[in-house]
Amino acid sequence: MESTESPSATATLLVSCADQSGLVAAISGFLTESSGNILDLEQHVDSSEKAFFMRVEWELEGFNIARDQIVTSLKPLLARFDMQWSLHFSDTRPQVALFVTRDNHCLYDILSRHQSGDLRMDVPLIISNHRTLEPVAQQFGIPFYHIPITSETKPAQEHIQIALLRENNIDTLVLARYMQILSEDFVSQFPNQIINIHHSFLPAFPGARPYHSAHKRGVKIIGATSHYVTSDLDEGPIITQDVIRVSHRETVGDFIRKGKDLEKIVLTRALWRHLQRRVLVYNNRTVVFA
Amino acid sequence: MESTESPSATATLLVSCADQSGLVAAISGFLTESSGNILDLEQHVDSSEKAFFMRVEWELEGFNIARDQIVTSLKPLLARFDMQWSLHFSDTRPQVALFVTRDNHCLYDILSRHQSGDLRMDVPLIISNHRTLEPVAQQFGIPFYHIPITSETKPAQEHIQIALLRENNIDTLVLARYMQILSEDFVSQFPNQIINIHHSFLPAFPGARPYHSAHKRGVKIIGATSHYVTSDLDEGPIITQDVIRVSHRETVGDFIRKGKDLEKIVLTRALWRHLQRRVLVYNNRTVVFA
Amino acid sequence: MESTESPSATATLLVSCADQSGLVAAISGFLTESSGNILDLEQHVDSSEKAFFMRVEWELEGFNIARDQIVTSLKPLLARFDMQWSLHFSDTRPQVALFVTRDNHCLYDILSRHQSGDLRMDVPLIISNHRTLEPVAQQFGIPFYHIPITSETKPAQEHIQIALLRENNIDTLVLARYMQILSEDFVSQFPNQIINIHHSFLPAFPGARPYHSAHKRGVKIIGATSHYVTSDLDEGPIITQDVIRVSHRETVGDFIRKGKDLEKIVLTRALWRHLQRRVLVYNNRTVVFA
Amino acid sequence: MESTESPSATATLLVSCADQSGLVAAISGFLTESSGNILDLEQHVDSSEKAFFMRVEWELEGFNIARDQIVTSLKPLLARFDMQWSLHFSDTRPQVALFVTRDNHCLYDILSRHQSGDLRMDVPLIISNHRTLEPVAQQFGIPFYHIPITSETKPAQEHIQIALLRENNIDTLVLARYMQILSEDFVSQFPNQIINIHHSFLPAFPGARPYHSAHKRGVKIIGATSHYVTSDLDEGPIITQDVIRVSHRETVGDFIRKGKDLEKIVLTRALWRHLQRRVLVYNNRTVVFA
Repeated sequence: MESTESPSATATLLVSCADQSGLVAAISGFLTESSGNILDLEQHVDSSEKAFFMRVEWELEGFNIARDQIVTSLKPLLARFDMQWSLHFSDTRPQVALFVTRDNHCLYDILSRHQSGDLRMDVPLIISNHRTLEPVAQQFGIPFYHIPITSETKPAQEHIQIALLRENNIDTLVLARYMQILSEDFVSQFPNQIINIHHSFLPAFPGARPYHSAHKRGVKIIGATSHYVTSDLDEGPIITQDVIRVSHRETVGDFIRKGKDLEKIVLTRALWRHLQRRVLVYNNRTVVFA
Repeated sequence: MESTESPSATATLLVSCADQSGLVAAISGFLTESSGNILDLEQHVDSSEKAFFMRVEWELEGFNIARDQIVTSLKPLLARFDMQWSLHFSDTRPQVALFVTRDNHCLYDILSRHQSGDLRMDVPLIISNHRTLEPVAQQFGIPFYHIPITSETKPAQEHIQIALLRENNIDTLVLARYMQILSEDFVSQFPNQIINIHHSFLPAFPGARPYHSAHKRGVKIIGATSHYVTSDLDEGPIITQDVIRVSHRETVGDFIRKGKDLEKIVLTRALWRHLQRRVLVYNNRTVVFA
Repeated sequence: MESTESPSATATLLVSCADQSGLVAAISGFLTESSGNILDLEQHVDSSEKAFFMRVEWELEGFNIARDQIVTSLKPLLARFDMQWSLHFSDTRPQVALFVTRDNHCLYDILSRHQSGDLRMDVPLIISNHRTLEPVAQQFGIPFYHIPITSETKPAQEHIQIALLRENNIDTLVLARYMQILSEDFVSQFPNQIINIHHSFLPAFPGARPYHSAHKRGVKIIGATSHYVTSDLDEGPIITQDVIRVSHRETVGDFIRKGKDLEKIVLTRALWRHLQRRVLVYNNRTVVFA
Repeated sequence: MESTESPSATATLLVSCADQSGLVAAISGFLTESSGNILDLEQHVDSSEKAFFMRVEWELEGFNIARDQIVTSLKPLLARFDMQWSLHFSDTRPQVALFVTRDNHCLYDILSRHQSGDLRMDVPLIISNHRTLEPVAQQFGIPFYHIPITSETKPAQEHIQIALLRENNIDTLVLARYMQILSEDFVSQFPNQIINIHHSFLPAFPGARPYHSAHKRGVKIIGATSHYVTSDLDEGPIITQDVIRVSHRETVGDFIRKGKDLEKIVLTRALWRHLQRRVLVYNNRTVVFA
């Protein structure tokens, strides 16, 4: 059940811990005892890693525990199972910053989806190392920050970026074809909060110019991959991927043109799932609940 | 977690009922109290229909309730919530009858999958209205019953078929390109137990010669649909579907050739999910747990 | 070879006729004799219909016949084989009118593709029966005509629309989620020039509210279809189709949200092929050259 | 147009050469002058490589040149353009050897497709380094040669294999999950004649245990690739590829099970195109005509 269908506010709890008996019973029992009506519950056990993951969403209306008391009430249970957890409310909108360079397709896709209400988020700012897309930001009335990057200025400019992100309480960064590599220091400040789109089906063709490499190799399928950014370039946990067929008739230019459809759709899908709090990360992999 | 990965025996409970508070807590609590280690739990709430569905699989090893006492122990809980339910054990193999006519592709796909251990089932018999595929049955050492059907002989022949199915304790029937329509009476005896493959993406092109109709209409995609058989031809609950691209270059003969890949794969996938007890039916639709 | 790769101007000839010997030789011979360097040639024979189709593109540079003499020079050959034909120049930009109502996704997709140079066309105007998308037209600096339609005003308003189209020399109309049915008279004036997007994999779920019907039927795949508009609603020749998987978890709202990706991509793909002069129509079907 | 639709014999000419003016006109003119009715003609120009490729198929009935005179008659034309070429007749069946190890799925897929007449070929023998699949060969009445391989015996055993292939006039080798690497010497004797299936979407996950690597990397899509074998392992020209979605729920065992569907279908599709003489190789890439 999704927020588009259930206008009343919900809480979502994400937990992970070592697998053990009684986990589902403990959490579902806790919610039931406080009259929490579970709207959606998904759990996953990775048996080879002995790891447990759960996402549970329940209605706040009728729930006997006040919002600001939920964490306190849950604490003993979370401690007993040594759980990692996060708690989210459907009426608290994620604050998302978009990073772009020159290509407009991912930016338009996200902003038009946002405009039509499909992405539950606010976009307080767009950051770019070029001015090319400033008019698009203006079209949608979103503040645009032009922060050019050179190898010399990068550390200083990243400080400015981070300050802007902090001022705006940004919790999610989307690299919508941002053609700069973030420093390890930058990345470490936003773990599992930076979503990138790479224009190949990783792990094939990491790095620069993947369509050129794909064309040279003569593949019959090209792809796009959305992943969380880590300090290893194009090696972060994959959220979603998609592909499209190509043939010998198609030039690199055709790959680029067709690939844009993949890139924008894969990125926006990943963002949607992230905003729905359906993604958990472990061992550089993701659990993506349906 | 699937049986290929967990060699020890498991129990699987499928339940459905009107949606209400406390359902997950009640069942997971019941299992936890009896030291049942939950391997997999999926639930679904259809909010527009106010309906609840759950599949839970747990280890029998260490479970405090003997197999033959599980139902008795569960009864009060099932009654309290007015649940429809079924209980399955992973070491009780489904008994599957295959119905075929002349086309060999679905038959080979199922039998070779079975031979390599991918389908947890026994196949006590193959029934056909033609002798064409008798050698295939012999290849795999499976009894083959040639039961020709005409409009006059149909009622009598169906009695013979049903007697064979009952003798062999068949619980699942697979129509692997069986080119006869089962009578309403036959179908009513095996509700949600007969799996058919139709060679179109239903509801497009029901009935005879869908590839010819698809070619005439000039579609750019053809498909196949696996569904449970009901008394309404090609109208039963859909289990799985898949498609493949076609172009103006392709003749009806090409559609038929390419469609075979779809038909066999879609049918075997549906059968696999059915055998894993992952499919529930309501309102002529299916819940197919992942 | 596509215009993105070959900046010099090309001519494209599309022909169709009854199949007979010597067609390829005649046309390729004609071009070769006049020093026309063929960049791309595709032909198709529908053997059951005994019909021949060809698209040939050649460089104008070095071609011995002046542009305005090509038709005259070709005439004898076209007459000999009783060919239907059309001739296009890569540097003559198609004039495209967009028709929209309230949904923005197809409009944004086409306009952002156009902005980045992927669609070789001009868009002299946008016509809508609502004011909702006027700001989007303004974002892109395209004249927007608000022409509301009721059953009473329809004939008069269609006259206004047609006048606008004629004034602007429009050769291609794109119904980008335009929620009005064009009259038979309107359609007859633009044969194989009006491209529509229907939000189902036709012929399944024609008419209104296909996602609702698909959800009710319990399909596991939803689709979108781009086709030329004829006087039979949703029955015109299909240009391209695509699909996406859905599950029991997804509501009608989810179908609508996911379907938007399909709709915009399928429509823009069809438009791209149309603009490349790669689509021929016969017997309510299309030949879509690669 | 395919042989399933046109029972009368056809000739197919494949040519490639440096791109230049007049190529299509020369060949189509040659055929037309001798009353050859062209059933299918496809050409491709790789403009960055300045390379030309063509496949043309025509009816032998009514063609004025006797079969054994075609090459002689074509020689001047082929020489003029310095063409590489091959000529095939639809009623000369390719002789195909299948190489297998233990997995049965690709073998069953090819043999059942062959049995139902979908693959125009003879299979004079099956070669394996294990006895596991000997019963399958017997089911289909095909001679089975058990040729075990160790690092010491490999050169000698490959000589035996090659002798068997020569005796049987084999022109196409299919490695249907054959778990041995052919020596460079072996491969060099059958250029573009050995078709392999690799169980990943190359270039991702070359080498051993790709499903394990894919699972570890946490990809959301797995694939299979059919390619011609060259002396560089998994680096040969790709003929066709396909993919399927996977999720965090799936184990390596599930990847293997689902991957079998991909492997068999991708391999059989590649074989079909190869047998139809629709594949040309250049620069370690393929032109695959539709």
